[in-house]
Amino acid sequence: MEVNGPSEWRFQANRHLIAASSRCVRKVVGSLINSLGNEDERQAIFLGHGDPSVFPSFRTTVSAEDAVVNAIRSGKYNSYCKNLQGLLPARRAIAEELSRDLPYKLSADDVFLTSGCKHGIRSVAEVLAGPNANILLPRPGFPDYEAHASFYHLEFRLFNLLPEKGWEVDLQSVEALADHNTVAMVIINPNNPCGSVYTSHHLMKVAETARKLGIMVISDEAYATINFGENPFVPMGTFASVAPVITLGSVSKRLFVPGWRLGWLVTNDPNHILSKTGVVESLECCQIMTSDAATFLQGAIPEMIERTKEYEEFHSKVIKILRDTADICYAKIKDIPCLYCPYKPQGSMFMLVKLNLELLEEIHDDMEFCVKLVKEESVILLPGVALGLKNWVRISFATEPPTLEDGLDRLKVFCQRHFKK
Amino acid sequence: MEVNGPSEWRFQANRHLIAASSRCVRKVVGSLINSLGNEDERQAIFLGHGDPSVFPSFRTTVSAEDAVVNAIRSGKYNSYCKNLQGLLPARRAIAEELSRDLPYKLSADDVFLTSGCKHGIRSVAEVLAGPNANILLPRPGFPDYEAHASFYHLEFRLFNLLPEKGWEVDLQSVEALADHNTVAMVIINPNNPCGSVYTSHHLMKVAETARKLGIMVISDEAYATINFGENPFVPMGTFASVAPVITLGSVSKRLFVPGWRLGWLVTNDPNHILSKTGVVESLECCQIMTSDAATFLQGAIPEMIERTKEYEEFHSKVIKILRDTADICYAKIKDIPCLYCPYKPQGSMFMLVKLNLELLEEIHDDMEFCVKLVKEESVILLPGVALGLKNWVRISFATEPPTLEDGLDRLKVFCQRHFKK
Ligand SMILES: Cc1ncc(COP(=O)(O)O)c(C=O)c1O
Ligand SMILES: Cc1ncc(COP(=O)(O)O)c(C=O)c1O
Repeated sequence: MEVNGPSEWRFQANRHLIAASSRCVRKVVGSLINSLGNEDERQAIFLGHGDPSVFPSFRTTVSAEDAVVNAIRSGKYNSYCKNLQGLLPARRAIAEELSRDLPYKLSADDVFLTSGCKHGIRSVAEVLAGPNANILLPRPGFPDYEAHASFYHLEFRLFNLLPEKGWEVDLQSVEALADHNTVAMVIINPNNPCGSVYTSHHLMKVAETARKLGIMVISDEAYATINFGENPFVPMGTFASVAPVITLGSVSKRLFVPGWRLGWLVTNDPNHILSKTGVVESLECCQIMTSDAATFLQGAIPEMIERTKEYEEFHSKVIKILRDTADICYAKIKDIPCLYCPYKPQGSMFMLVKLNLELLEEIHDDMEFCVKLVKEESVILLPGVALGLKNWVRISFATEPPTLEDGLDRLKVFCQRHFKK
Repeated sequence: MEVNGPSEWRFQANRHLIAASSRCVRKVVGSLINSLGNEDERQAIFLGHGDPSVFPSFRTTVSAEDAVVNAIRSGKYNSYCKNLQGLLPARRAIAEELSRDLPYKLSADDVFLTSGCKHGIRSVAEVLAGPNANILLPRPGFPDYEAHASFYHLEFRLFNLLPEKGWEVDLQSVEALADHNTVAMVIINPNNPCGSVYTSHHLMKVAETARKLGIMVISDEAYATINFGENPFVPMGTFASVAPVITLGSVSKRLFVPGWRLGWLVTNDPNHILSKTGVVESLECCQIMTSDAATFLQGAIPEMIERTKEYEEFHSKVIKILRDTADICYAKIKDIPCLYCPYKPQGSMFMLVKLNLELLEEIHDDMEFCVKLVKEESVILLPGVALGLKNWVRISFATEPPTLEDGLDRLKVFCQRHFKK
């Protein structure tokens, strides 16, 4: 055989995949982290992402760890999970837990266990993609929706969230964007990146709009347990008799263990529209095609849910911290002239802040702002452009309070340094 | 608002997804399990799948469980994994472990952690799909390859494995099938469903063929540690300097914990062809788009690998069982006139058996054979049609010996009952 290979190998890069993935939050944050300079002796402060689980105050409950350890030690969960939707006792426990806030009862059959909400986002895109179909996504939003929609050739159209109205959905823009090929709209509540928690009244309006358009609502409730303002969290499923709802959730922000990769996708379908139209069957097939969450993690769910007392103590503690850090964040930002925050967060872990570029020297957009901030102050924020909102930045306040204060002080120094003379 | 919804909801089933997923092993086995009758008081015997982890003899090592428990209790792995390819110490440990059998050293950068081989299979299809591209797959094969290829519109073409030649790849049929749009060929070694283990000589021929065609080799080595015959297992990566190789592996069959969903995809690319062509970048982007394996499972890998002594004891024990059950299976099948096995398994957990339908009454194909066998004897085998080989059946011998004997005795009774008079 010849010593050299053929002049040309026949495989190549997958440009479509590369382009789609470039939208993911993970990619944007990763590239900012790479901009960190070596000169700064201070510790880098990460306010760009929503994963406070490294901080001692956010260490998950012993009961959650126990549940997983017990499941492993039992030896009962080493096998593949035979049930396509996930282990029955786990799905039953989740159905019961989520039903407590709903006007009807979910059944175990409504629950699909996933490897985190991220898996659910992918499944939704995978299931809804079809010739000419389109989906309506919020702007600002969580960019993984756009990444997966674009990967699966599911056209997406962006409707606005309204800062002056507590980041509510602009329902007029939803109606204006929809056509006969629109299949769904996505809401995120409590909202990443805006920190808003929608009122029951607003959710009802969302449901009515969806019904009018003949579309389903995908409700990303990853932050369901993280609200600390005046609006109580209301699950979108409450209005599922108006229009069918698919809810996404996970333990990531509930137990502060995003590394566990354990979540759920729930059909809220009291009128059986999702099953009659074959969407449920499609979801089942989607489960067949992907890897499940580890079986022992599924097996641990009932114990995690049963030990409510430990969870409630933990939950009050972290909610108190987040309420405080949201306060600190809002107050400190108010004090920086070139930044503007239209809304004090009531939930999630994020605040959106507008840059007043006219007051800043040699900074022309949010990306440049974030890159210079990383280089000069070792503070990482997420540029709004990654969320569809140019010249805003997203600050995560889920951090130990002293770290947050330090980060915001550095941000202030940075803004002062670049303040137009 | 009107009380009734719109006359028509705009979303619908995803037929393409449903059709693609119907190929998956899981779907076929699931439908057979549903055929189990209620009348039979005997326990059902599952010889249709390769998951013996429920049996006491195949219970994984305490050291593997310890590694996971320690990782959870450390609290160090609750966060998202920041590295796209997976935690560095885990990738380093895997690179080192796999390099022991290779003529060159893998680096941590060659290793991508996955949520089981299944995730790797999906990634490969995802990355290689492109306008007009096609991939060559073995017949008989592992149907998930076909499912994912068809889902991603990656055309697949089936080459034969040759029963009379120890189920080696028919390299002439590979060459005949390939064209300018062929990007890769898949081999499974040790082989599911054939139980064969390829010689070094044969793998070299595979590499040379791939090089001649300008394609890469995807080597599914899920059963790398399960060989008990005369051919030692040789990793395909040994010949990666001839043609680039992507290897898939996992802990599923190595530690008998398929429910843990932990695996790896490894680029064997000493000539940097996969990186120069952008395939590596595509794999990285593919990782961004999917959920990783749980971070604590990644964190547990170094300890799992370090504690070799416990692993080696466990491994010798299960290999001994599998050697025995392969013997039992081969001997018992030889004794049933209407069945024929051309090859005694040397590895994996499976044996392929040909049905002589001319000797059987009222059984017209493998599916009917399997369905009747389930109904009458509560024994589950996998019909060959699910693997691309009509009128064969796959028997898994990874089972406690008494259960296997019981199952094969029932199979014999079944064949006798249906024997043509
Ligand atoms: C709105 C939203 N949805 C989904 C996710 C992904 O969550 P999970 O960790 O459950 O995959 C995140 C994570 O940050 C998020 O912010
Ligand atoms: C050939 C082959 N590849 C891949 C897999 C999937 O393995 P994993 O459990 O690592 O996803 C299997 C499982 O049976 C298999 O037989």
